[in-house]
Amino acid sequence: MKGRTLIAELHESIDKEVTVGAVVDVRRDHGKLVFLDLRDRTGVVQAVALPNHAEALAVAQELRPEYVVRVEAKVNKRPERMVKADQPNGDIELEILSVTILARASELPFDKDTALNIDTNFDYRPLTLRRDRERAIFAVQAEIVHAYREYLRGEGFSEFQAPKIVGDDAEGGAEVFRFEYFNDRMASLATSPQLYKQILVGVYERVFSTGTMFRAERHSTSRHLNELTMLDLEMGFIDDHRDVMAAMEGLMRYLNTHLQKTSAREFALMEATLPLVPEGQFPTMTLKEAQELIKKETGADKVGAPDLDPEDERWLCSYANEHLQSDYVFVTHYPTSKRPFYTMDDPEVPGMTKSFDLLFRGVEIVSGSQRIHDHDALVQKMESKGLDPAKFSFYLQAFKYGIPPHGGTGLGLERLTQKMLGLENVKEASLFPRDMNRIDLLLAKDTAHTSDL
Amino acid sequence: MKGRTLIAELHESIDKEVTVGAVVDVRRDHGKLVFLDLRDRTGVVQAVALPNHAEALAVAQELRPEYVVRVEAKVNKRPERMVKADQPNGDIELEILSVTILARASELPFDKDTALNIDTNFDYRPLTLRRDRERAIFAVQAEIVHAYREYLRGEGFSEFQAPKIVGDDAEGGAEVFRFEYFNDRMASLATSPQLYKQILVGVYERVFSTGTMFRAERHSTSRHLNELTMLDLEMGFIDDHRDVMAAMEGLMRYLNTHLQKTSAREFALMEATLPLVPEGQFPTMTLKEAQELIKKETGADKVGAPDLDPEDERWLCSYANEHLQSDYVFVTHYPTSKRPFYTMDDPEVPGMTKSFDLLFRGVEIVSGSQRIHDHDALVQKMESKGLDPAKFSFYLQAFKYGIPPHGGTGLGLERLTQKMLGLENVKEASLFPRDMNRIDLLLAKDTAHTSDL
Repeated sequence: MKGRTLIAELHESIDKEVTVGAVVDVRRDHGKLVFLDLRDRTGVVQAVALPNHAEALAVAQELRPEYVVRVEAKVNKRPERMVKADQPNGDIELEILSVTILARASELPFDKDTALNIDTNFDYRPLTLRRDRERAIFAVQAEIVHAYREYLRGEGFSEFQAPKIVGDDAEGGAEVFRFEYFNDRMASLATSPQLYKQILVGVYERVFSTGTMFRAERHSTSRHLNELTMLDLEMGFIDDHRDVMAAMEGLMRYLNTHLQKTSAREFALMEATLPLVPEGQFPTMTLKEAQELIKKETGADKVGAPDLDPEDERWLCSYANEHLQSDYVFVTHYPTSKRPFYTMDDPEVPGMTKSFDLLFRGVEIVSGSQRIHDHDALVQKMESKGLDPAKFSFYLQAFKYGIPPHGGTGLGLERLTQKMLGLENVKEASLFPRDMNRIDLLLAKDTAHTSDL
Repeated sequence: MKGRTLIAELHESIDKEVTVGAVVDVRRDHGKLVFLDLRDRTGVVQAVALPNHAEALAVAQELRPEYVVRVEAKVNKRPERMVKADQPNGDIELEILSVTILARASELPFDKDTALNIDTNFDYRPLTLRRDRERAIFAVQAEIVHAYREYLRGEGFSEFQAPKIVGDDAEGGAEVFRFEYFNDRMASLATSPQLYKQILVGVYERVFSTGTMFRAERHSTSRHLNELTMLDLEMGFIDDHRDVMAAMEGLMRYLNTHLQKTSAREFALMEATLPLVPEGQFPTMTLKEAQELIKKETGADKVGAPDLDPEDERWLCSYANEHLQSDYVFVTHYPTSKRPFYTMDDPEVPGMTKSFDLLFRGVEIVSGSQRIHDHDALVQKMESKGLDPAKFSFYLQAFKYGIPPHGGTGLGLERLTQKMLGLENVKEASLFPRDMNRIDLLLAKDTAHTSDL
């Protein structure tokens, strides 16, 4: 829009005339005056239509929330007693000279900032995403992804584009979506870029990827998404899993600093707080040590169980928050039986792997490990897990032709966003959540929904 | 790896002892000496095992290409007459004190830098990606993606994660992969984030996304991929399609500067040249003007045809390169019949749309337009194209509740990479290309390939 002044830049034009392109947030009629809250991507500002600009006033009276307008206006400093110091642009006001309607909006089905149940929120996603709350969530999410990449580039990692269509011989484990590819051959949607990022350790040593992954899990809970964004990394020439943990710790510290710099407003709006990060290293314990701590402190004896229960993860996190000045806790050495075939065993702790989870505010957000890099050991491990190495021949080339000792992690973006901002449901951290019952609209009910048209 | 010195940093350790983690590129035996070319993610260096370190020499004699090693060595300056000034680290040499084998490699099926036919290249992708050529291609690709994001962030765009699972009512047009979602409901794999990025113009005004898209096209040519990476953007408050073209032009100029800074070595290795960018604006002509120019210059009369043929695009690009000092040409105003339903018509040029293609080195790399932002006009256009607006009710909410005038573009990453580097086949610009016949290994032959194990 030619000559447009962004709302965040209005202060540079006090007493001048400007052109603003904006959306009407609110209209308030006060007798012969009309007040508008206008928003653009950079902020909000109050505008007023006065009787001395009759034509502008007439148009302003017609406006409703979500109308899109071009406004010619004079930027006035507000008189001292009208200044709202706690509001952005609370010290200025636009005096409207003319208004052009660029797009009209139907009456909204609900007040924009009303609390909505989650299904209504998703049914009207094109509209509800415009609310302050949702805009804050996905602004923070974008900054998380940005910080992830920026940190890893600085550490010598190369970005790669991971394939999503994979052969029909997926790792097994998580349920997969299958589909007919060509000529009656079946393909699957990738549940992780695991095999590819390991292959790429042989190429670039250190790689990362951000992208969509698919889980055909038949669960409809506040913890499940059938399509999610994974932030993956893999790094070569490690001594053991602790090098990978150190990379994750560096990343989380970097993320904290970055969010403090970029997203303070969004955290305030969400009434969320930045993670508590200890001065020294992140608290770290083995699964067994964690279980012994839980037994000692709570009496619950789960020592020897192959994994932590969700309630254990919650307890550990609140313990770390209270006693160890940290919202992050590493738990290491999960049993071989519970970890994927590519995970390296720890010869010093029989039955256990060089693996870890990173717990954050009650849940696991990162899973990682050192991987097996010896070709024959890897084949043997596949066989011991009942997998057919012949189906992994492409992947195994990376090992046949030599690959450095390496390890890596996967981090679910939606879950991290959820926990950063204290959202109840992971689906709130997905712009367009896909679950068993919903692709945009509810699957069972979309005939009903077409009546919204 | 504790105490590791990266190869690019060896110069800081001349006359000192270092630990290097590296892959053996080449071994050369010279009588009692063994020379090794070692590579890590930062570079290559020559190392020599001498008889006075008998144990190290014995291990060095065992090494073959792609073995992964940890080397303790002294960094020596080469005597003047041994300096190879044209090689990286040509003035130093590692004197090996000890070698530890971290991973062994089988004998390679071919010499690493041999010219390979494309199927062999893909059959052995975990190995062939390690070649200088392939590492250069995907290093440049990563920089393109990085520059895309960096430029757009600077221009006030927000990144979003686009859904890949979409309802079964896709736009039509490109063929889509369909699959069973849950409870007998079918879903499709997204061919573009088009509808979602438009929805998000209502939220953030300016958005971009980088991610995988899927095309179920039954073509196996040097121009087709069934899975590709799209760089998409959409921007609000435009006056018309020319604002979008200006954004693309800014992006391409930024990309040029960025690649010059980051990727000169890769361009040299590929014998590729950076794009020719004119000092003034990119050459721009309407489809009709382009056709008239072709007729005048070549005699081929295609004036009035609804699109350019591939040979026209090649001709126009070489014309622009020769006469207009530009590897980029904008062609605007394609007919309504050839453009998707959301494209805005140009009232001043009946039958034509406010659309454009950006041609680059003989092909279209970007397609874009101003979009229709009026709800009723959009519904009408759907109907005139034989689409059922009821199936777009979710998307149409964005228009029902007001959306700024907007436009956007889609840019195929693999094709841009191909043309930047002068690759013959677009598949060479995909790490793990998926086509009708291949997902990693050839689909029809994968039993044969398991024998590679």
